Amino acid sequence: MKLASFRSACNSLRVYTSHPGSRFSGLFRRCFPVGITNNRLAIRAGSATTSSGTRSTLPANFGKQCKEELWSEYNYSVGEAVQRTKAAMVTLLRRNPEIQPLLAILQAGEDDSILEINKKIAGKVGLNVTQICLATGCSEDEIVEELLKLNNDPKVHGVYLHLPAASLTSRVLGALNPEKDVDGTTDLNMGRLVRGDASEGFVPPVAGAVLDLLGKHDAPLKVKSVLLVGGEGPLRLALQCLIERSGVEVNTSHWNSKSLQTQVMQADAVVLLGAGNMEVPPTWIRPEALIIHCEPALKSGVGYLTAAYRTQNVIHSCNRWIQNQQYRPWRLRSLKLLPLTPVPSDIEISRAQTPKPVDQLAEEIGLLPEELEAYGRNKAKVQLSLLDRLHSQPDGNYVLVAGITPTPLGEGKSTVTIGLVQALSAHLKLNSFACLRQPSQGPTFGVKGGAAGGGYAQVIPMEEFNLHLTGDIHAITAANNLVAAAIDARMLHEATQSDKALFNRLVPTVNGVRTFSPIQISRLRRLGISKTEPTSLTPQEVSAFVRLDLDPSKITWQRVLDTNDRFLRKITVGQASTEKGQIRETGFDIAVASEIMAILALSDSLKDMKDRLAHMVVGTSRSGGPVTAEDLGVSGAVAVLMKDAIKPTLMQTLEGTPVFVHAGPFANIAHGNSSVLADKLALKLVGRDGFVVTEAGFGADIGMEKFFNIKCRASGLRPNVVVLVATVRALKMHGGGPNVSAGAPLPREYINENLSLVAGGCHSNLKKQIQIAHLFGVPVVVALNVFKTDTRAEIDLVCQIAKTCGASDAVPCHHWSQGGRGCLELAQAVKEATRRPSNFQFLYPTEMPIVEKIRTIAQKVYGANDMELSPEAKSKIDYYNQQGYGSLPICMAKTHLSLSHMADKKGAPTGFILPIRDIRASVGAGFIYPLVGTMSTMPGLPTRPCFYDIDLDPDTEEITGLF
Amino acid sequence: MKLASFRSACNSLRVYTSHPGSRFSGLFRRCFPVGITNNRLAIRAGSATTSSGTRSTLPANFGKQCKEELWSEYNYSVGEAVQRTKAAMVTLLRRNPEIQPLLAILQAGEDDSILEINKKIAGKVGLNVTQICLATGCSEDEIVEELLKLNNDPKVHGVYLHLPAASLTSRVLGALNPEKDVDGTTDLNMGRLVRGDASEGFVPPVAGAVLDLLGKHDAPLKVKSVLLVGGEGPLRLALQCLIERSGVEVNTSHWNSKSLQTQVMQADAVVLLGAGNMEVPPTWIRPEALIIHCEPALKSGVGYLTAAYRTQNVIHSCNRWIQNQQYRPWRLRSLKLLPLTPVPSDIEISRAQTPKPVDQLAEEIGLLPEELEAYGRNKAKVQLSLLDRLHSQPDGNYVLVAGITPTPLGEGKSTVTIGLVQALSAHLKLNSFACLRQPSQGPTFGVKGGAAGGGYAQVIPMEEFNLHLTGDIHAITAANNLVAAAIDARMLHEATQSDKALFNRLVPTVNGVRTFSPIQISRLRRLGISKTEPTSLTPQEVSAFVRLDLDPSKITWQRVLDTNDRFLRKITVGQASTEKGQIRETGFDIAVASEIMAILALSDSLKDMKDRLAHMVVGTSRSGGPVTAEDLGVSGAVAVLMKDAIKPTLMQTLEGTPVFVHAGPFANIAHGNSSVLADKLALKLVGRDGFVVTEAGFGADIGMEKFFNIKCRASGLRPNVVVLVATVRALKMHGGGPNVSAGAPLPREYINENLSLVAGGCHSNLKKQIQIAHLFGVPVVVALNVFKTDTRAEIDLVCQIAKTCGASDAVPCHHWSQGGRGCLELAQAVKEATRRPSNFQFLYPTEMPIVEKIRTIAQKVYGANDMELSPEAKSKIDYYNQQGYGSLPICMAKTHLSLSHMADKKGAPTGFILPIRDIRASVGAGFIYPLVGTMSTMPGLPTRPCFYDIDLDPDTEEITGLF
Repeated sequence: MKLASFRSACNSLRVYTSHPGSRFSGLFRRCFPVGITNNRLAIRAGSATTSSGTRSTLPANFGKQCKEELWSEYNYSVGEAVQRTKAAMVTLLRRNPEIQPLLAILQAGEDDSILEINKKIAGKVGLNVTQICLATGCSEDEIVEELLKLNNDPKVHGVYLHLPAASLTSRVLGALNPEKDVDGTTDLNMGRLVRGDASEGFVPPVAGAVLDLLGKHDAPLKVKSVLLVGGEGPLRLALQCLIERSGVEVNTSHWNSKSLQTQVMQADAVVLLGAGNMEVPPTWIRPEALIIHCEPALKSGVGYLTAAYRTQNVIHSCNRWIQNQQYRPWRLRSLKLLPLTPVPSDIEISRAQTPKPVDQLAEEIGLLPEELEAYGRNKAKVQLSLLDRLHSQPDGNYVLVAGITPTPLGEGKSTVTIGLVQALSAHLKLNSFACLRQPSQGPTFGVKGGAAGGGYAQVIPMEEFNLHLTGDIHAITAANNLVAAAIDARMLHEATQSDKALFNRLVPTVNGVRTFSPIQISRLRRLGISKTEPTSLTPQEVSAFVRLDLDPSKITWQRVLDTNDRFLRKITVGQASTEKGQIRETGFDIAVASEIMAILALSDSLKDMKDRLAHMVVGTSRSGGPVTAEDLGVSGAVAVLMKDAIKPTLMQTLEGTPVFVHAGPFANIAHGNSSVLADKLALKLVGRDGFVVTEAGFGADIGMEKFFNIKCRASGLRPNVVVLVATVRALKMHGGGPNVSAGAPLPREYINENLSLVAGGCHSNLKKQIQIAHLFGVPVVVALNVFKTDTRAEIDLVCQIAKTCGASDAVPCHHWSQGGRGCLELAQAVKEATRRPSNFQFLYPTEMPIVEKIRTIAQKVYGANDMELSPEAKSKIDYYNQQGYGSLPICMAKTHLSLSHMADKKGAPTGFILPIRDIRASVGAGFIYPLVGTMSTMPGLPTRPCFYDIDLDPDTEEITGLF
Repeated sequence: MKLASFRSACNSLRVYTSHPGSRFSGLFRRCFPVGITNNRLAIRAGSATTSSGTRSTLPANFGKQCKEELWSEYNYSVGEAVQRTKAAMVTLLRRNPEIQPLLAILQAGEDDSILEINKKIAGKVGLNVTQICLATGCSEDEIVEELLKLNNDPKVHGVYLHLPAASLTSRVLGALNPEKDVDGTTDLNMGRLVRGDASEGFVPPVAGAVLDLLGKHDAPLKVKSVLLVGGEGPLRLALQCLIERSGVEVNTSHWNSKSLQTQVMQADAVVLLGAGNMEVPPTWIRPEALIIHCEPALKSGVGYLTAAYRTQNVIHSCNRWIQNQQYRPWRLRSLKLLPLTPVPSDIEISRAQTPKPVDQLAEEIGLLPEELEAYGRNKAKVQLSLLDRLHSQPDGNYVLVAGITPTPLGEGKSTVTIGLVQALSAHLKLNSFACLRQPSQGPTFGVKGGAAGGGYAQVIPMEEFNLHLTGDIHAITAANNLVAAAIDARMLHEATQSDKALFNRLVPTVNGVRTFSPIQISRLRRLGISKTEPTSLTPQEVSAFVRLDLDPSKITWQRVLDTNDRFLRKITVGQASTEKGQIRETGFDIAVASEIMAILALSDSLKDMKDRLAHMVVGTSRSGGPVTAEDLGVSGAVAVLMKDAIKPTLMQTLEGTPVFVHAGPFANIAHGNSSVLADKLALKLVGRDGFVVTEAGFGADIGMEKFFNIKCRASGLRPNVVVLVATVRALKMHGGGPNVSAGAPLPREYINENLSLVAGGCHSNLKKQIQIAHLFGVPVVVALNVFKTDTRAEIDLVCQIAKTCGASDAVPCHHWSQGGRGCLELAQAVKEATRRPSNFQFLYPTEMPIVEKIRTIAQKVYGANDMELSPEAKSKIDYYNQQGYGSLPICMAKTHLSLSHMADKKGAPTGFILPIRDIRASVGAGFIYPLVGTMSTMPGLPTRPCFYDIDLDPDTEEITGLF
């Protein structure tokens, strides 16, 4: 720092001494300027005046000499502060090369000398500064508008309000985000300082400067008592608090106080505040006392040292911001659970708990407010930009919950998933997230059974989870049906118009100009036409371009609804006269069966989703080529409809721990797993030592196999542990127990102890499912979901056999009746298992021929002797190979009720040949799905659907009868 | 107040005197206890000790006499504070009889004496107290959980944290809502106090008590200087600020300060803080000086006077809360608009403006945070509870924007609506709200043209307005189609099961018990069966109960989709083998054509909506009776699906003024107006002098007529002014200008000045539409939406003729190119017109026979000579009369392109007979709709739908090509 640059700092300096001329150098060390007043030269050495009129004379050359000495002392303080800040900046930048700390100055009018000082100091430190210059006399509204922009700008780490005092109104100060208030002027920061919470907020730079000088008095903290004279308001109070808190006694006095002289004479240091023309007679000052003079203008922050402390606060703010994004154990406020016996209905339990506001939950788990989009009080979408912000954060542990082969007696994978995170987060205080599928709304009104877990392991509010949620499935319905409408409308227009008429309409002349849209240019490229000038196309090219020439009998795209509407399974459309006889047979699926749902679940970015949507094949042209959504010109619009759906929805468990709900593709014709993006976001949020627990649909042979071979392949994520869920009752059925039928009383084998059936189920189905997980190299923990009729001996038997079958551990779980506390043993076992090596590997490479991939799954996973292709399946394989889809992974559409294709074969069937009836492809989603048997993609309603019991109390707005 | 009750107040009293025994009574007046320490009797009269060891002796009876005198003085102060607070309470209750101010005490452990004092004082004032008793040693989480509940409880006006000091952590204090922090302990309130903003926040009760006593020293403010001795932290700082702010000098000192004696001797009043065992020797105290002793325990708030001030703060808080709900001009931060020339595309304009966060907008217009449910950053649903909170608030002015008969050249009703509120709110600073219809998403992807306004008069972000919004239309789709699925499933089950089987399934035995659900009991009632015991029904009754016996050819309920899918206009369903041949013809409508949309728009409460949904008629039984949604058992579930949709969605205009978007029923088969509830909420929010501007679909002959006769009848609201929108171009067409066709250049009549065509349009269509409004007794302001080709003479001519035709005023509007500033003249004219009397009356009473109601509309509104019923229409009228629907209002389904039924007849046709082809009923919505011609209820896609241009940038997430 150059000598010249500090001359101006001494401008408003005033100097006092108790012993004029006695020991100059010692005297000088006690006199410091903390600032200047707008370039006003205010040296008044030679005389000093108090209110009482006493005068004393200083030597003639006092002023000049004093300035020299003071400059060196002040220079030292400023220089040191700048060096310290610079060092902090260097450390910050070394650790976070992508961050650029930034101070924003909001000013009214041109730069003045104070701003120049601040910019100079910032320059020395290497701090970037941005200036927002409003007009002199700007309105409160204008200031607030700019402030809000600065609040929301993540690149700004500190805001310096360089405004006239009259503009610093309550509203203006109230608008500034306290986290960026590096001057510590907001009410909240002032309150924090007064209360003594130094961990948040900021020390006002002027106060920092005064403390610096006090601390430099010979040796730090040699000062035992400080007298603050004059001044009022926040600055004095801040100083008072800070000095007291450093263990030094503070007294205050007023310029016209009768005891001023006594107090000054007894103080080790005197800070003169708001003096104006008031001065303390040098004769009052003790020989060793330190005098610091603060000009009133200092309140708005002036001087080099003040500027240096402001700079320091910006670095501090930036560091704090960075630290908030680092991995840390969450300070999660868990919700207390007081389980009742008998366990009430799911909706009663859900309603009895008050969820935390979702913005509070988000803050607890380290989300920034700007990353959250609330949907009401209990749900919020989380922005994907989080992945960029946390890209350098290591992922947490990745746990998959799968089940044994399902039976009508239930296993409870969802409740285990939720119970496990409740135990991990709320009890073991380990960051953990559950990632769940969004359920279809259709079945909610058909047959009872929610998807939000159950008992004391639930996502709340369960009615919001089970109904519209944040509209993702509605968006899929809209997107899917826009494609369908585009298909039929296009066929009609092609059937009723000439090439020329079609071309004139598809590429119209607007204001005399005819241009292709980007999506049309894509289509031309696919047709091998490189022209971009519409008029240059040959008639053949025009024809190829305008005619998709869809074969009505080979349209695979169905319409969808999120309603159990069986009468739409097969329909004839186009029967109105306006459609000119273009009728055809088609059908509706339930919305979650849409390929768009599978795409949502597998995409890892907006761009990836857009690409997949464009590549969806909707049918085949008469010449045999695939026709895509992009050919229809609709893929951009479909992406627009899906732009919010791609963001996962944050909810919470009954114990206040975080849950992502996102995507819910079918587990037969699709892969049955929640989204890649939710898992990725959650793994970053839980951080290094955290856990993300997700669930695969159906039994492990289906859901887990697809999780590994399809989802993990798409995401690149590697699982650490599989939790395999079983129940004593289901194991009994797999061990040879009798069939059950709805309505009839449960056979007593399932109610009374029966160790041999239990052992039978363990040695067949449970063992096989453990082995399947091991095929992929992942350790298994068996979670036995305990029912009240299970006996101790049965429970022990399952756990013992599971371990002999290779499970890392096997434990009983009581989450349904007890919440997270009932799942502690499982949580510990999972934590233990993550320490084991997971040597994850895929079951097959994608380059393997389609037939071999199917055979591998049939033999290694299902235990079949072999598989058998129908002629239809064979020809489809040829067609897909020809179209270049041969290297897609396989998504088996098989019954979930048996390891085989025969639903009634429980246990672990062997010696069968798996028949492949037909093969289809979801090209956009990126898999081929062989059909083993018929799959219903549109459920129906029973005679007495559960909507009979569902009602809304118009006064309380409470829903009744929903599960 | 009884003498005995104050004895305990003197318990911890310590007394000092400078002249022992000299003038007792005078002396006593300077000694006040401000509190007690947990029942500890701490009188130590007779000796006083300072740190320096000086002792002085007091007379033996000093303590007792002192107590008596002190009691009387203290009693006076406490009594006065209690009386004052009680008076404030009486005033509050008189003005707001429905309010019950409530103090919540959050405590750990049992009541102690301090709590007893607080409860006693509250009792004297008449303040309700609720206590939340946590266990001693409760956790931070538990405290925070309770605090959050108290924050969210609108019945609680103040929270007193009676917790051990160690529990008052940063997190606990940070969790308390500062608006309920009657102890002023939160950082924000402390900061406010320090900065000196007394308008918000609270004075800590202890500080209030000390100030009270200081002020009572002989005469108020006689004290000129106060010395605060000892103590640290917030309480001392609060006192210091408050005393200084009252104009009194404050000095501070420490117990071990060397200048303590001098300071004490010079002070007019001494406040001893945090003294512990420290005392000031009586000899130091000046004869007239006032001594106040604050025990350390006072920090946590003790003593009667402190309790009185706490009580006072609760009343203050309650008053502040009430005041926030009163009518007031909003402090709306309007967004600056800098219109460009030429005007950019709608989406470019929308994107260039940054909307205010919706929670900020909500706060500005007086919504409470708990009344808002945010949907992302820019939209929020508003809870209907607002109507209860503001029920005593007078409504604002109610303005309807209607148009002349539409032409392909456009009129711009939406832009006028938005421009008008931008002018009223952002420029004239009058509270005003626009209430708009939510557009269907289907056409967004078909033919260009958004519904969010256009140019510089738009709702932003326009893409959110035009796409999913908050999912209301999706909810309607789900609800509508659940009813449809229920109809077909029921017909299938009835066709394939015996009465007994149906009964066993509909009323199943659960755990040995068989019961009717409430919705089934409703059906029994309608059948005239009063039994409630399922087994008691006769076979005939069982049969009547289980069989709706729907006639498949008379099902009027259609499925819906929010997609332009023309191929679904007429379809055959049930063709899959699973549906056993139960095929039938039916169709899909666009979602906004669902009767549920009309119900949403007309309901005035959740209960009303639920009732209307139950009464929807879905078809006719074979015996000719109507079958309702309630008969299907589905109406409760439908209400559940619609429970969020009933809340209007808050958005904003380009200038940051509030807009409700809610419901968008068709304007032909339904009434084409946004919701009753949005208007009601908005009228309360704008208050007495405010404006609510809403828009009616199509021309005034249709949209306005239905607004008056259907919507106003349902809501009970009365409009003050009609704004009739016209354009020069459209008037020219009505005046005989040539037809225009899409794609062809505009005929020059529409580009060049042509006064005779303009005059022709004014004297025909404009005049007629003005007359129609006058039929209802409402004043009309004509808004001429100016295009750049309009000439001065044309504009003047329209305005002049409009006024001669009876318009209150007629003004040109330039909102499209200039925003609110371009609509100022209209805003002034509307404001003027609201001062005119509006003698609103319906066109017909509902009791008038259906035929007469139709005839009245045809003749008086459309200008027909008469109307003519088809035989089908005649028989429907008979049927509806027989079913009791005869007194429903009429909703004409007529072309909007002419006042007549002939779309090509512009101007004001006369001499025609209006043909009524058929008549239908929306019984749930509550109207009968005669069909004049055929109405398409499912639009189609053109050859080149606008989705070709719509795309999403995956990096910026920006949408392109949307209008």
